[in-house]
Amino acid sequence: MDEFEVIRRYFQRDDKFTNDLVSVDSGDDCAVLKLPLGEELCVSTDTLIEGVHFPIQASGRVAAARAIGANLSDLAAMGATPHSCTVALTIPEVNDDWLSGFASVLAIASQDHHMPLVGGNLAKGPLSITVTIMGRVAAGEALLRSGACVDDDIYVSGCLGDAAGGLKVVVENLEDTAARYATLRSRYQSPLARISLGQSLQGLASACIDVSDGFLADLSHVLKSSGVGACVELDKLPVSSGLTNLLGRDGALAAAATGGDDYELCFTAPKSMRQNIEKLADDPMLTRVGHVTADTALRVNNAQGLAMSDYATDASLKGYTHFK
Amino acid sequence: MDEFEVIRRYFQRDDKFTNDLVSVDSGDDCAVLKLPLGEELCVSTDTLIEGVHFPIQASGRVAAARAIGANLSDLAAMGATPHSCTVALTIPEVNDDWLSGFASVLAIASQDHHMPLVGGNLAKGPLSITVTIMGRVAAGEALLRSGACVDDDIYVSGCLGDAAGGLKVVVENLEDTAARYATLRSRYQSPLARISLGQSLQGLASACIDVSDGFLADLSHVLKSSGVGACVELDKLPVSSGLTNLLGRDGALAAAATGGDDYELCFTAPKSMRQNIEKLADDPMLTRVGHVTADTALRVNNAQGLAMSDYATDASLKGYTHFK
Repeated sequence: MDEFEVIRRYFQRDDKFTNDLVSVDSGDDCAVLKLPLGEELCVSTDTLIEGVHFPIQASGRVAAARAIGANLSDLAAMGATPHSCTVALTIPEVNDDWLSGFASVLAIASQDHHMPLVGGNLAKGPLSITVTIMGRVAAGEALLRSGACVDDDIYVSGCLGDAAGGLKVVVENLEDTAARYATLRSRYQSPLARISLGQSLQGLASACIDVSDGFLADLSHVLKSSGVGACVELDKLPVSSGLTNLLGRDGALAAAATGGDDYELCFTAPKSMRQNIEKLADDPMLTRVGHVTADTALRVNNAQGLAMSDYATDASLKGYTHFK
Repeated sequence: MDEFEVIRRYFQRDDKFTNDLVSVDSGDDCAVLKLPLGEELCVSTDTLIEGVHFPIQASGRVAAARAIGANLSDLAAMGATPHSCTVALTIPEVNDDWLSGFASVLAIASQDHHMPLVGGNLAKGPLSITVTIMGRVAAGEALLRSGACVDDDIYVSGCLGDAAGGLKVVVENLEDTAARYATLRSRYQSPLARISLGQSLQGLASACIDVSDGFLADLSHVLKSSGVGACVELDKLPVSSGLTNLLGRDGALAAAATGGDDYELCFTAPKSMRQNIEKLADDPMLTRVGHVTADTALRVNNAQGLAMSDYATDASLKGYTHFK
C-alpha cells in the first residue's frame, strides 16, 4: 500500500465531511476555500511528537484526539468558529489499527465541528502529527492576548490540573484504579476544546488564552502581551474531586497552577461584565481566580493571602520547554 | 535557550515581513488574516523529512529552500498569489548555524513573495519541516487538475530532469565538477516555483499541476482527475545541456520523464490558445510535448513515433512512494 492508497483508504472516505465553504477539496495541488463576507481567518499550526506530546505506543485514537483538541483549543482562545484543517502525518509504518483509530477520531471531529479535512501530507518517518487549523471570526472580533486592563477580573473555565493528573494515571499505568480515574485519563487523552465558550466571550472578555503550557505560564503570556501584572488566589483555582483524590489538596492546586494540557480558557474581563459572565451557561463552570494589576509581576497568594514565591519562579511560569 | 527564545531570535526578527492582509501576527493563539473581496484561499501542507526530501546533514539553507520551493509550487499550480505561511519545525537540537541559514532563506522568501510567516511550531525531535502555505486567487479562477479535455495540448515549463540530475551531483558528491554542474545542483537545492507563470495561465490553461513526483507521474494525476488519456513525445521533453552532459541524451530524457522535484508546471490548454500561450514571456520557456486523448491510457512515443512500454509501467508513473 503506497501513500496514495493509504490516503484513499483512511482519509478520503466516501462519508468524508465537507461543506459549502470548500470550493476545491483535497486531491488537487491546494484546497480552495471560501471565507464569508465580513469575516477573518484564524490560523494555527501545532505539532505533536510521540514521547513528548503523547506517550510512546499511544493509540491512533489518543494521538488524533490530542492533536485535534490542542488545535481546536487555539481557535477557542480566539473566539473563532472552526472552518477547516489540514493534517501532516509522518508514520514509521502502515499500521491498520493505528491508522483506523486516528482516521476515525479525525472524521468524528471533522463532522462534529463542521470542519472539513481539506488537505495534508503523508510521509514515512518518526511518528509526528502536524495539524494546521483554520477558523473564522467576525472581522475585528478575535479575542487577543493583548487586551487585559488593570483591575480586570481573571477567570478560568472548568477544572485545572486534570490533564496533568491524567498523564500521571497513564504514565504510571494505574490500571487497577482505572475506573476511579477514568475522567482524569480522558481529560488527558481526549481533551475537549472550549469552542462554544470562546464564541460566547466575544464582547465580554478583554483578553483570552487557552491553558496548554500550564495556567500560570499561559496567564503570564497574557500579562506580557498586555503589559500588565496579576494577583491570583491559589486556593480559588478550580480542581476536581478526582484530582484531589489522586494528588491531595496541595498537589491538586500545584497541578492546577502549573500542569499543562487542560485546554481550558483563561480570560480577563472588566468588572462591569460580571453579571453577563455569570449568565453564561453553567457548562463549563467559570471561576474568578484573581485580578489584573498595574505592577507587571504575577503574584500568587495562598489561602491565608500570603504571597507564595514558590509559584512565581521562572521554572513554573514557563511551563514545558523543548530546549533548555 | 528554550523554544520561545529560539523563536524570538530566529523567526520574530525586527525586520520580519508583514503586510496589510495580516490583522494579528504570530504571538497569539492564532494568526488572524484578511482575504480580499471576491477572492478564495488556496491552502496546501507539505512535510519534508531529512534523508527523504533533503539529504542528511543538508544545511538549513537547503532545507528551507526546498521546503519553501515545494510549497510555493503548489500555489503556482493553482495560479494563486502567495498570501502567508506557517512553518512547523522539529529539530534535534539548537544549532545556530543551521537555524540561521534556515531562518534567513525563509525571511528572504517571505519578503520576495510578500508572504508573511504568520505562525508555526517549534519542537524537539527528528528533523522535519512542515510548511502550510496559503495563497489567494480570484473566486472560481483556480487552475485545477480536472479540466483537461480531449485534443488539448500538453505543455511543460522550463527544463525537466534537472533536479534529479542535481540530486545525483549532491549525493555522489561530484565536487570536482562543482562549477560544471552548479545549475543542476541549484535546481535541486533551491527550486524556484513558477508563481508568475501560474498566474499568467489563468484563462488559458484547462488543467495544471506542478512537477514534483516526476513528469509522467504528475501528468497521470491530471489525466485521472480529468478522465482522459494522453500521448506524449518523449523526444520533445525539454532537457538542459547540463543534464545531457551528466547523463547522456537517453539518460536525460529518462530523468525528464520520471525524475521528481523539478517544480516546473505541466498544463493542458485548448489548441485555440496556442497563440496566446506563445505570447507569454520567454522565461520560463514553454514546450508543447503532447496532446490529450479520449482513450484513458498515457502513451509515450520515442523519436521514431513508436510507443515505449518502458515508460508506461506502473513504477515509472507513480514517482516516489513512501510505502511500498
